[in-house]
Amino acid sequence: MPEIVILRIGHRPLRDQRVTTHVGLAARALGARGMFLAADDSGVVRSIRDVVERWGGDFFIEDKIPWKRCIREWRESGGTVVHLTMYGERIQDREDELREAERILVVVGAEKVPGELYGLADYNIAVTGQPHSEISSLAVLLDHLFAATELDREFPGAHVRVIPSAMGKQTEER
Amino acid sequence: MPEIVILRIGHRPLRDQRVTTHVGLAARALGARGMFLAADDSGVVRSIRDVVERWGGDFFIEDKIPWKRCIREWRESGGTVVHLTMYGERIQDREDELREAERILVVVGAEKVPGELYGLADYNIAVTGQPHSEISSLAVLLDHLFAATELDREFPGAHVRVIPSAMGKQTEER
Repeated sequence: MPEIVILRIGHRPLRDQRVTTHVGLAARALGARGMFLAADDSGVVRSIRDVVERWGGDFFIEDKIPWKRCIREWRESGGTVVHLTMYGERIQDREDELREAERILVVVGAEKVPGELYGLADYNIAVTGQPHSEISSLAVLLDHLFAATELDREFPGAHVRVIPSAMGKQTEER
Repeated sequence: MPEIVILRIGHRPLRDQRVTTHVGLAARALGARGMFLAADDSGVVRSIRDVVERWGGDFFIEDKIPWKRCIREWRESGGTVVHLTMYGERIQDREDELREAERILVVVGAEKVPGELYGLADYNIAVTGQPHSEISSLAVLLDHLFAATELDREFPGAHVRVIPSAMGKQTEER
């Protein structure tokens, strides 16, 4: 199973704050190690760190990341770069191969991404060729690459934990 | 494979427009039949109908839906109601059973949902007990219930279609 880190690019502070926070929280919940944010947005960083503090695990988030250098360094250190785009190859055709990678940087763009990104990535991968959401695309990608094992993951050090329940809300505080 | 329709509740016009549009587009791309919106928001309806017009398929969207009546009528007509919530039972424990249902209404709430919803649904289902995003939760739920077959789905009548490609953007206009 690869280790997966997200690189979020094209984030516009304020306008994209909520969607980028959802990208980060989905990444954390579905087993990614952390997120690099190629923008200056302490609001997103704070929201995500608050969730980690309360709900456990060691997901990291760092903002003000120069995206090209991040991709270059990831590749130079032997990691694989996957750009998530509706124009890419079908995930169902590449997922077996990607599951063999050791470390994957998943680049998640906002509405427009620089054209050169397609050439900088090792793979351009689509979750359907339909317009939907980077949040849903990332969720399906992570779930496929982790073969649904991420759903059983524990988040050590949590102050609060949900107890799965057929009806109502049950939580445990520690 | 069940027929799946989304019921979006708790939508606050303006504030939730982008997230609800992402919910609708993810639902469409990942094989749902349509979305009922329990709010008055013609902006969301227009965005989604524009995508259907251009990208094909027959996904429907209707707003101003009274949510309780929608749930009651769905159940009275023999359908199954699944409420997506981080407090629910683990999807991995219920997905085999849910795949046997004929018609599922998936209720997707915004930040707060009325407490009585837990009792009105046949199932309360969680995609991890962690806080993330209704968009990522819905994506994983649909992908699991359709057993990834939705990724091969065609959208008839499209004016534009992506040609999956290892590098760059290729589309076909019709």
